[in-house]
Amino acid sequence: MSTPTRTAVLLARGPDRKGLVARIAGFLYSHGANILHADQHIDMLAGMFFQRIEFTLDDMDLPPGQLQEQLVPLMRDLGMTFQLYGTDDVPRVAVLVSKLEHCLIDLLLRSRAGEIRGQIAVVVSNHETLRPWAELFQVPFVYLPVTPETRAEQERKLLDVLADHEIDLVVLARYMQILTPRVVQAYPLRIINIHHGLLPAFRGARPYHQAMERGVKLIGATSHFVTEELDEGPIIEQEVARVSHRDTLSDLQRKGRDLERLVLARAVRLYLERRILCYGNKTVVFD
Amino acid sequence: MSTPTRTAVLLARGPDRKGLVARIAGFLYSHGANILHADQHIDMLAGMFFQRIEFTLDDMDLPPGQLQEQLVPLMRDLGMTFQLYGTDDVPRVAVLVSKLEHCLIDLLLRSRAGEIRGQIAVVVSNHETLRPWAELFQVPFVYLPVTPETRAEQERKLLDVLADHEIDLVVLARYMQILTPRVVQAYPLRIINIHHGLLPAFRGARPYHQAMERGVKLIGATSHFVTEELDEGPIIEQEVARVSHRDTLSDLQRKGRDLERLVLARAVRLYLERRILCYGNKTVVFD
Amino acid sequence: MSTPTRTAVLLARGPDRKGLVARIAGFLYSHGANILHADQHIDMLAGMFFQRIEFTLDDMDLPPGQLQEQLVPLMRDLGMTFQLYGTDDVPRVAVLVSKLEHCLIDLLLRSRAGEIRGQIAVVVSNHETLRPWAELFQVPFVYLPVTPETRAEQERKLLDVLADHEIDLVVLARYMQILTPRVVQAYPLRIINIHHGLLPAFRGARPYHQAMERGVKLIGATSHFVTEELDEGPIIEQEVARVSHRDTLSDLQRKGRDLERLVLARAVRLYLERRILCYGNKTVVFD
Amino acid sequence: MSTPTRTAVLLARGPDRKGLVARIAGFLYSHGANILHADQHIDMLAGMFFQRIEFTLDDMDLPPGQLQEQLVPLMRDLGMTFQLYGTDDVPRVAVLVSKLEHCLIDLLLRSRAGEIRGQIAVVVSNHETLRPWAELFQVPFVYLPVTPETRAEQERKLLDVLADHEIDLVVLARYMQILTPRVVQAYPLRIINIHHGLLPAFRGARPYHQAMERGVKLIGATSHFVTEELDEGPIIEQEVARVSHRDTLSDLQRKGRDLERLVLARAVRLYLERRILCYGNKTVVFD
Repeated sequence: MSTPTRTAVLLARGPDRKGLVARIAGFLYSHGANILHADQHIDMLAGMFFQRIEFTLDDMDLPPGQLQEQLVPLMRDLGMTFQLYGTDDVPRVAVLVSKLEHCLIDLLLRSRAGEIRGQIAVVVSNHETLRPWAELFQVPFVYLPVTPETRAEQERKLLDVLADHEIDLVVLARYMQILTPRVVQAYPLRIINIHHGLLPAFRGARPYHQAMERGVKLIGATSHFVTEELDEGPIIEQEVARVSHRDTLSDLQRKGRDLERLVLARAVRLYLERRILCYGNKTVVFD
Repeated sequence: MSTPTRTAVLLARGPDRKGLVARIAGFLYSHGANILHADQHIDMLAGMFFQRIEFTLDDMDLPPGQLQEQLVPLMRDLGMTFQLYGTDDVPRVAVLVSKLEHCLIDLLLRSRAGEIRGQIAVVVSNHETLRPWAELFQVPFVYLPVTPETRAEQERKLLDVLADHEIDLVVLARYMQILTPRVVQAYPLRIINIHHGLLPAFRGARPYHQAMERGVKLIGATSHFVTEELDEGPIIEQEVARVSHRDTLSDLQRKGRDLERLVLARAVRLYLERRILCYGNKTVVFD
Repeated sequence: MSTPTRTAVLLARGPDRKGLVARIAGFLYSHGANILHADQHIDMLAGMFFQRIEFTLDDMDLPPGQLQEQLVPLMRDLGMTFQLYGTDDVPRVAVLVSKLEHCLIDLLLRSRAGEIRGQIAVVVSNHETLRPWAELFQVPFVYLPVTPETRAEQERKLLDVLADHEIDLVVLARYMQILTPRVVQAYPLRIINIHHGLLPAFRGARPYHQAMERGVKLIGATSHFVTEELDEGPIIEQEVARVSHRDTLSDLQRKGRDLERLVLARAVRLYLERRILCYGNKTVVFD
Repeated sequence: MSTPTRTAVLLARGPDRKGLVARIAGFLYSHGANILHADQHIDMLAGMFFQRIEFTLDDMDLPPGQLQEQLVPLMRDLGMTFQLYGTDDVPRVAVLVSKLEHCLIDLLLRSRAGEIRGQIAVVVSNHETLRPWAELFQVPFVYLPVTPETRAEQERKLLDVLADHEIDLVVLARYMQILTPRVVQAYPLRIINIHHGLLPAFRGARPYHQAMERGVKLIGATSHFVTEELDEGPIIEQEVARVSHRDTLSDLQRKGRDLERLVLARAVRLYLERRILCYGNKTVVFD
């Protein structure tokens, strides 16, 4: 047995109505696809239907280009929007960092180990600190320093770098700058941040200090899409660790680093496997 | 918005082949069903396909009886076996207990709170201890004492009680007797046990003593279907709790009771919502 | 082997300085105590020392009354405050409830099973709903209805009830009323509440609705001491459960009830075993 | 405020009797020590007393050498054995690996980040694969290939390497060879292994395959001291991750790598902070 080599993922959504599953599955079957995974969700309150289908391309009677084309009228007819991703297309990822190394190294290692589909195409930073790590993994490193005065200019350059590298996904791996709407709007629901607090608690700066101050018994980390409102975007994944009165701030940071790594890596993996759909301010995660 | 009142669940399985999803969904759609939930799984190694579909009956052009009838040739054609459950049919549950009360009370409370679909139709015990709890919840209590000499006779009576109450599911809620193959075979994959160890560790008697002896740092509980081999049936759900050198045997038992309650209740709920498929010695749990 | 029958717990705190452990342990030893458990904590930032010592009374050359007396000058000399609890003294607990049953029943069952030291001396409610449960466990039930107009009068009666029953600890087991400062001040750091959100997130009303709205991936419950600021008192214990897009509000409530039970029971147990010290707005929990 | 610069840890054990805490604390106090952390445990069944005390050396009237000397008669008098560790002494660690990189890199990163007290003094492997990682972190790498025929010779060389580097702790970071009693006896309770199963389940080879086969719903990892019986040594730390029917063997391995990293790192940190005492086949972990 071996996994089929060429597959595609269809993400689709629209108002719920009868026959969506039958019509979509019927279409794929009629063209020779074999459905490997199919997940669906109906939000009863919103009356919305969401679907992820992963299927083989090998025996289809349509080349991927025509598949896309023929899905358009079907989906229009069903009142749905969709994206189609061939798993041959390797998504390109930019990782933005400042000085903290743990999330970047973790992503580089997981990428090399094949845990994360997609290619880390560039590392961008407002500091030179982590250049050696990018170079060790033979990933281009772009240094874009920033001051309050140069922010607009720096973000213009950042957008150029992202465009040059044909980036699909931007990952903020403890990047200590707040992106302006200009960048956020250029990559809508395509920027993932790791926040080192259990959102919506401890928004903003220094969440471990806030957690210490409040005396919580669990700390957490949250990966979410970046929107124009700080720390308010759709949540993808969260995890916690137990703390006690014995834990100092540095213990919280140590435990937190482990959470951040895990929670960010899970979000990136889920995104690149096309398992996330957003609606309203929430995510549907087909894991 | 209100949840549709009449729905059905279809559980199906068979060798994987193209078009299963399309054919089944197409059939349901052609008869007016609206699919509310659909989950599928392909075991690539075994080449097996599993599906759970929950759909509305309200607008169907077939009464449930005829639906069952018409599914037979379709499924035969697809090489699949299936079960169809109307959610109007309330499954009947027997709970077998000895002297420990926590799992029984938990199930009775959850049942009354509507957490568990199905009706606890009878409580059977080899001791009188828990009769008051059954009576408090107005559930018939049957006392069936047993000794090594009377086991065969007791089990014969047990089977009579189960038959009289038209039992679908037997729950061993810390029932301190090992059922013989005669009972197990009468309810294949329809008897759920809670084992107070993290199987396959600590099989058999006194798992907390074994855990204490071995010095583990996590204890667990396991709910599983009962098969003829003790503690070897398909696992449905497991959960753990952290322990340390400070925990005495009675601490382990206290923490364990919480695990047992949770893990047994989850298994019963999953079963009664028809979310579990077994194959080989494993479960597919569509939760 | 058997656990010593008569023990005492000393909780002490004061500015950190050399010799605290030696002086206190030396005093106890010189009077014949055997120290069973000793836990200490130094908050380096605050310069504060906290200690819990559990020791046998059986061979001491002082009766408990005189022990208390002789500790006074020692502790004064060390600049510390302390409480001494004989484990023979059974603390008396009042449980305040409204209509939700799960936390009350859980406490009653655990108390009867011996999991919780102390005696549930009275159940007070602003509804009659849960009277049968109190009566089932032979605990006095006091019905104190309340309206905005009668709040002051109702709280006066409540304080009378608590005084009449010589209550040490007040437990708000999903009591749907906010206590005024008058009651809070009468039982400082002796009122424990269960909040069905992971504080400081989702303060105030309807935390599961808030969690649903925000699209979090973990829900939680928090037990804390009640202070005059709503949901801002020192946190004792927290726990989480994983949720997904599939979970409806009623699923969140179901999972939440399990969390609430566990987290409240742990807090009550820890308090009654005299394992909690408060300072600032935090707890030191010697578990 | 700053943490005291020079501290020491005393680990002591012996049959439980009155006055142990008072005598030891009194001795330290009389020589000017300030106790920062003190933890104790009594195993009631075994009648054994265990203690860990961390105290400042700065104001003591004894140099560390004499402290050790003077503790000898005190401890003999109390019937106890002890170890004294100055936190100035940096323990030296050898990491043994084969081809899997994740645990080694994790330890190297944590060591560099200061999470782990102690110095990784040498990496030893039966393969050349991971040499670049050792060199990247400027740690000597020793290649010691082994075949069934050369095992005795290879272990002789291994012992030489360990001796040359004055190793305190040997860490098996997915080292795919079973050490013979000769090595185990040379480092009693000073060799830590990471097993990728939740011991005592899934001992021996290929635990993820075993877990897959058995259909468990939780997988785990276990760090433990190596003794002459394979996978039977005292357990230090364990952690689990949830799996489902959807997880393939490679998913189990992916989730497992995260567990292995965490659980091994915790054990190494606990050991190097002198927080672990062994007795019988168990550990007391003062965390």
